Amino acid sequence: MMQATSSQLARTRTVEVAQRAGQRVRVQGWVYALRKLGGISFLILRDGWGTVQVVVEDEAALAPLVDANLLTETVVAVEGAARLAPQAPGGVEIGDPTLTVLTPVTDAPPVLIAKREINAGLPTLLDHAVVANRHPARRALFRLAAGVMAAYRGGLTDRGFTEIQTPKLVASATESGANVFAVDYFGRTAYLAQSPQFYKQIMVGIFERVFEVGPVFRAEPHDTVRHINEYVSLDVEFGFIEDHFTVMALLREVMAHIFGELAAHYAAELELTGAALPTVPDPIPHIHFSDAQELIRRRHGVDVRGEPDLSPQDERWLGAWAQAEFGSDFLFVTGYPMRKRPFYTHPDPARPEFSNSFDLLFRGTELVTGGQRLHRYADYQAALVAAGLDEAPFAAYMEAFRYGMPPHGGFAIGLERLLMQLTRAANLRLTTLFPRDLTRLTP
Amino acid sequence: MMQATSSQLARTRTVEVAQRAGQRVRVQGWVYALRKLGGISFLILRDGWGTVQVVVEDEAALAPLVDANLLTETVVAVEGAARLAPQAPGGVEIGDPTLTVLTPVTDAPPVLIAKREINAGLPTLLDHAVVANRHPARRALFRLAAGVMAAYRGGLTDRGFTEIQTPKLVASATESGANVFAVDYFGRTAYLAQSPQFYKQIMVGIFERVFEVGPVFRAEPHDTVRHINEYVSLDVEFGFIEDHFTVMALLREVMAHIFGELAAHYAAELELTGAALPTVPDPIPHIHFSDAQELIRRRHGVDVRGEPDLSPQDERWLGAWAQAEFGSDFLFVTGYPMRKRPFYTHPDPARPEFSNSFDLLFRGTELVTGGQRLHRYADYQAALVAAGLDEAPFAAYMEAFRYGMPPHGGFAIGLERLLMQLTRAANLRLTTLFPRDLTRLTP
Repeated sequence: MMQATSSQLARTRTVEVAQRAGQRVRVQGWVYALRKLGGISFLILRDGWGTVQVVVEDEAALAPLVDANLLTETVVAVEGAARLAPQAPGGVEIGDPTLTVLTPVTDAPPVLIAKREINAGLPTLLDHAVVANRHPARRALFRLAAGVMAAYRGGLTDRGFTEIQTPKLVASATESGANVFAVDYFGRTAYLAQSPQFYKQIMVGIFERVFEVGPVFRAEPHDTVRHINEYVSLDVEFGFIEDHFTVMALLREVMAHIFGELAAHYAAELELTGAALPTVPDPIPHIHFSDAQELIRRRHGVDVRGEPDLSPQDERWLGAWAQAEFGSDFLFVTGYPMRKRPFYTHPDPARPEFSNSFDLLFRGTELVTGGQRLHRYADYQAALVAAGLDEAPFAAYMEAFRYGMPPHGGFAIGLERLLMQLTRAANLRLTTLFPRDLTRLTP
Repeated sequence: MMQATSSQLARTRTVEVAQRAGQRVRVQGWVYALRKLGGISFLILRDGWGTVQVVVEDEAALAPLVDANLLTETVVAVEGAARLAPQAPGGVEIGDPTLTVLTPVTDAPPVLIAKREINAGLPTLLDHAVVANRHPARRALFRLAAGVMAAYRGGLTDRGFTEIQTPKLVASATESGANVFAVDYFGRTAYLAQSPQFYKQIMVGIFERVFEVGPVFRAEPHDTVRHINEYVSLDVEFGFIEDHFTVMALLREVMAHIFGELAAHYAAELELTGAALPTVPDPIPHIHFSDAQELIRRRHGVDVRGEPDLSPQDERWLGAWAQAEFGSDFLFVTGYPMRKRPFYTHPDPARPEFSNSFDLLFRGTELVTGGQRLHRYADYQAALVAAGLDEAPFAAYMEAFRYGMPPHGGFAIGLERLLMQLTRAANLRLTTLFPRDLTRLTP
């Protein structure tokens, strides 16, 4: 078998075959489809980057597959003549092929992936994600995920931010105290970090500007299309801000950079996933929480004033308003009431019942939460007392403030949430390779 | 306080002050040190990137600090005249300053950080990492960490690799069955991933070439200078390899790229951490496991033949030999015995008691483990039987092989291990921001 791959001919990736028209090439990959049309067979070979059509005029060339009753997903090497063919997908095909089987497959895959649309139900698709994620549209989605991460990091690095990796095993249930997973840690109980919030703030004292891309864990017992229990959080925190509007300005730049990079480098993936790229207005329109509630009363006759948060319906209404009023897919809602925000939230100095925080709505759904944090030691002491929290579990966190922290703030983008809204996926589970939910720990 | 930061003058970072010599500048940061020399005071201000010297000839300018008995780490803004000063650190200083306190500090820090060397003991340093990591040498180390991650990703992306994020919560204790942390997952038991091994292999079926940078969790009850229980793993896996030598060739390129990028962009950090950059020979010399044991017998008179693994002493001897024989900081040891390698390891076809695996020694210590994996479904079935393992917990993993996987392999680099050997740190705990060990879950 190894001999088969040690051909003299160097391997050509499917996406590079067109550049080698007129030459003999060797491609390697999976048998994506095999179709017979008249006396001619068309083998579509898929590799890590794309597919290429192999035209088989001499049926004997397929003997290694056919004689052994091998099925799609069999791994093969094909040598043949690359030639331009305007009628072929991608405008190129491989003729006069010699086929070698590298790894035979004799079972029919649990999900048909050589279709334009995957027509498996959600449970089947998730149960067999190992195979289903080989579908070109699924691959395209996860390439977009990689593109978002790369653009995020690139944009921030260019702005003087340093990447950090903070611990996921923590000593105490941090932010809310609820919805954390407990871990048996050498006879003690540790918890899985719900977010890098405390650590990224601490890191402002060290690097001033930091970002992290990493897993976060939420033991939320919600079984909805918008919840998973482990997801990838794109976190930012930085110092020497004016207030939350400094944070919102950076977030706008980051979002514009991400979508700009996707537009520039991921055209094929955007098409395969049916994603509709937004434009990011400069500035993104913003509305204060209390004005938003007032607007909803005026436009929809529903009085939500007094509610401490926006409902999903409220967010949809506001999204529609931003679209109608500004032609914008994005809307900042600022100044959420303090009583629904975590203890480290900075109040609005002019109206202390409201906070210097924001949500960014994207197409009528919350995508990013952020804001200004408290930065004075005494303010933290008071905030813990007000929240009825003991100071001891927060000792390390408090040390950052005791020894000098500048005004600072940040935000967190949920990677899957962003992909979900970008591709208008019906379920957040579809935007992660191997989702974790109330009942699902595998694959 | 907010007014103080809303000066008309835009902020200048410390590292950019020299470019603005002759102009008035505003810098912001922490009071790193305050020294009096004759009638003149020197305030060293530290920001996220470096330090700058502020010369205070008029003592009244320090009143906001001195009158309130404020200490180092107080957060300040300073406006003054930037001027070239060959005798000043960095060749620039700020004169005629106006100082504003942004956040006062009245307690003396638990670790003195305005020293060239931190002279706190390890426990103090780790207990107070929140403050100790503000030390310039600590910051430099963690900037190197960011540099390693960025170079790693860049080098692999350039070679057609796609970044992935795989689940850290898994259904079964995967590789060894031992040393995993258990998590209470909605009444069931989940485990923290020891490595992304199974998922990165599965992803070869999807993208062919993948990498991941993320946390891994090892419940190893070892209290040594070389063990921590959560660390950052730089993982690679890719398909259509010849054997483990294909993997070693890629690893060499990746290592050369990482150290090349550090040399090009991190000179200051390398100096501050006392790091000695290696050169990466092309190719890196390699020796078979059995020849390595024979060499040790011949050179050191110690017969370790029959041992299934190399001891730390063996590795040091081999490292010294590679240095003496090839002038190389690096040495590949190949062909470790199958009986000590995990069940998915590919045997050496010619000598099946040995494996197509390798370790990369860096300065006489193992830095990277990798190799070729099995890729045929039937081989996995046989390997699980041979290892006495039930197939059921591996059902999702097995699906990848049932439906076609190419010959593939990969490796994993421990980020902290790399930093430890690069900077010759005495303890692995010193190379991670907030280490986790047997007794330490905080900060």
